[in-house]
Amino acid sequence: MTETATREQLTPERWIDAATELLVDGGIDRVRVDLLARELGVTRGSFYWHFRDREDLLRHVLEAWRQRATEQLTARLESAATDPREQVKDVLSLPFRGRAAVRAARIELAIRAWARRDAMARQAVDEADAARIGYIAQVFSALGFPIAEARQRAWLVYSYLIAESLVAGGSAAQREERRRFVERLLQQPRG
Amino acid sequence: MTETATREQLTPERWIDAATELLVDGGIDRVRVDLLARELGVTRGSFYWHFRDREDLLRHVLEAWRQRATEQLTARLESAATDPREQVKDVLSLPFRGRAAVRAARIELAIRAWARRDAMARQAVDEADAARIGYIAQVFSALGFPIAEARQRAWLVYSYLIAESLVAGGSAAQREERRRFVERLLQQPRG
Repeated sequence: MTETATREQLTPERWIDAATELLVDGGIDRVRVDLLARELGVTRGSFYWHFRDREDLLRHVLEAWRQRATEQLTARLESAATDPREQVKDVLSLPFRGRAAVRAARIELAIRAWARRDAMARQAVDEADAARIGYIAQVFSALGFPIAEARQRAWLVYSYLIAESLVAGGSAAQREERRRFVERLLQQPRG
Repeated sequence: MTETATREQLTPERWIDAATELLVDGGIDRVRVDLLARELGVTRGSFYWHFRDREDLLRHVLEAWRQRATEQLTARLESAATDPREQVKDVLSLPFRGRAAVRAARIELAIRAWARRDAMARQAVDEADAARIGYIAQVFSALGFPIAEARQRAWLVYSYLIAESLVAGGSAAQREERRRFVERLLQQPRG
């Protein structure tokens, strides 16, 4: 009776979130059905109500990450600001979104490390990167830059976002100065 | 007799290299003395000829990485080219140095993932980042940019280097175009 109740309470999302936590805390090898079941306080068997096997769970972890990671950016760009200059500003502010940004960066780093030795993770990462760079490139196209150059500028903006999430970079004031510098430099015509 | 010979053949560097390989292949939790000894075909006890404990080995792994990672950059900047424009070009070519660059990127990503949950690794990564950004900033100072702006430009160059090593980025021709774009943009005066 208790077990049935527990099974009903545990949505697939709970398993996916717990798997993502284990991935961040200890790398992909720690994401094991037995460890997850223990963590969630349920039987190993209840896992199979939602997932075919570990591989199936990992696929869902990637899918959940990809949706969140890409949506975060695209939702920002498609709503609110329509002035491309405001959109550039908005994208560059992503690393400054507090704890959500820090958590997103930790998950992303763990997934990138996993992608170094797993083709399925590699594909998810490559697709997310391409989607995000593509969106940023559209903004630079809207600013009037030719297509190839818009993509190069987008690449550099994306590089900046990655570095801000990976590299410890001085005081808040220095980070803010840097953000403004990137904002200006990336929008100025090529000399 | 055989064991003594083996112990003599295994330098500390062999242990450090093997530990680095395990770190890259499976994350920090895989770097265990018993797994290393098995991998190297020696007894667990012979480990203690060279290292006090696992922590001591990990410290040496970080030290070896830091020396190699920082030296790679500083050696380039301090030799050969003295024209700062050539030095910028040289730094931007680092991601294109073939297999050595790919291997260095794999090690660095694994260490960054480890640094998310370990203070000692965090410190090593932060110091390496600061040293490398500092060197690149010097080049921009030599180009005549004010100190703060030289550091901002250096940050963006460093971002570019990290992204090139992390993100799958199109064809060789596109990567080359991108490198040239960054080279030009980062040296042009602010509008």
